[in-house]
Amino acid sequence: MKILVVGANGQIGKHLVRFIQDSKDHTARAMIRNPEQAAYFKELGAETVQVDLEGEIEDIAKAAEGVDAMVFTAGSGPHTGKDKTIMVDLDGAVKTIEAAKQAGVNRYVMVSSFDTTREAIQAAPESFAPYVAAKHYADEWLRATDLDYTIVHPGALTNNPGTGQVQAAAKVERGEVSREDVAAVLFGVLENDTTIGKEFQVIGGSVTIQEALKKI
Amino acid sequence: MKILVVGANGQIGKHLVRFIQDSKDHTARAMIRNPEQAAYFKELGAETVQVDLEGEIEDIAKAAEGVDAMVFTAGSGPHTGKDKTIMVDLDGAVKTIEAAKQAGVNRYVMVSSFDTTREAIQAAPESFAPYVAAKHYADEWLRATDLDYTIVHPGALTNNPGTGQVQAAAKVERGEVSREDVAAVLFGVLENDTTIGKEFQVIGGSVTIQEALKKI
Repeated sequence: MKILVVGANGQIGKHLVRFIQDSKDHTARAMIRNPEQAAYFKELGAETVQVDLEGEIEDIAKAAEGVDAMVFTAGSGPHTGKDKTIMVDLDGAVKTIEAAKQAGVNRYVMVSSFDTTREAIQAAPESFAPYVAAKHYADEWLRATDLDYTIVHPGALTNNPGTGQVQAAAKVERGEVSREDVAAVLFGVLENDTTIGKEFQVIGGSVTIQEALKKI
Repeated sequence: MKILVVGANGQIGKHLVRFIQDSKDHTARAMIRNPEQAAYFKELGAETVQVDLEGEIEDIAKAAEGVDAMVFTAGSGPHTGKDKTIMVDLDGAVKTIEAAKQAGVNRYVMVSSFDTTREAIQAAPESFAPYVAAKHYADEWLRATDLDYTIVHPGALTNNPGTGQVQAAAKVERGEVSREDVAAVLFGVLENDTTIGKEFQVIGGSVTIQEALKKI
């Protein structure tokens, strides 16, 4: 399987591309914004493609040509302006969904936020609510498509090393999860078609990722 | 007909409530954020209801109880933070749409932006794109409902006195239009059920609003 990783240069994205390349069964195409970001991926033997998420759907669709699945793990991040929340986390995500359709890529895995429900938007602190809203509408857009989607809702992200063990279900207690484990979950999702059409929250835990995904 | 005007205290909203109250056939309920905004509407004999667009759908639905139509003319405005673009122009709008459904209000008139297409988002200057995107997704949400909607896309708004004359069609040249004329168009839309399920751009022109709306 060839997988387009959107937001490959993020921390989750970097782990994910590494897992994909290490697997031998699959290959990654890393979608990056700047050519300077390419070295890491070339070293892993992954393809790279340079596309700005704020660009045209057609450019993203071209980047997705010939892949079997797409993973969206881009995020505007805490250091970009507030404008980027809607332009990247919502509009950028929607454009990749539309690009997947255009390119005939049926499998789409979305890295969402832990809770993107209406209730979560209302309950969020004022500074965080726009991000939750952006992810809410991106998730809604994806759910309304015919794509074979999975939506992953990770808890509070840490840079701890992965443990390979998590807790995953439609609803779990709020908690932390390492970015490396989230990447491993994404890889597991790509390998498990039983996760198609489903979404789940995931935090650190004591069940192997394989086991956890089987029960989704 | 009783009409809930969301964003009544904006300039278009104030004109619209006045037109509704002057008509004698209809009455307005002005949805406002602060009680200090009530005096203008009380003077016109209109009802007021105090609800924050960033609040719960249920509160908006309660404000909409017993009305026959809803007009959304709220906007975050140029002086609010960028966060407000997604929280008011998108999420606020969506909540009023959901509130209309909950309250059984079938008629919904949206004041959108002149061009909210994908092409317009891509072509917009960086500072304006988030607003266009927010309006794009609000319009999309409305189109996907079963509500009897009309989406009005006004040109660049001015504070010139209304002329009662406009140019309106699915596509018109970019141009200016006075807020008072936009309010008159909204009033005309409410009175013309032939505009249901339609959307149009409107700028200043030389055709009476009645005539212009007949050709939509």
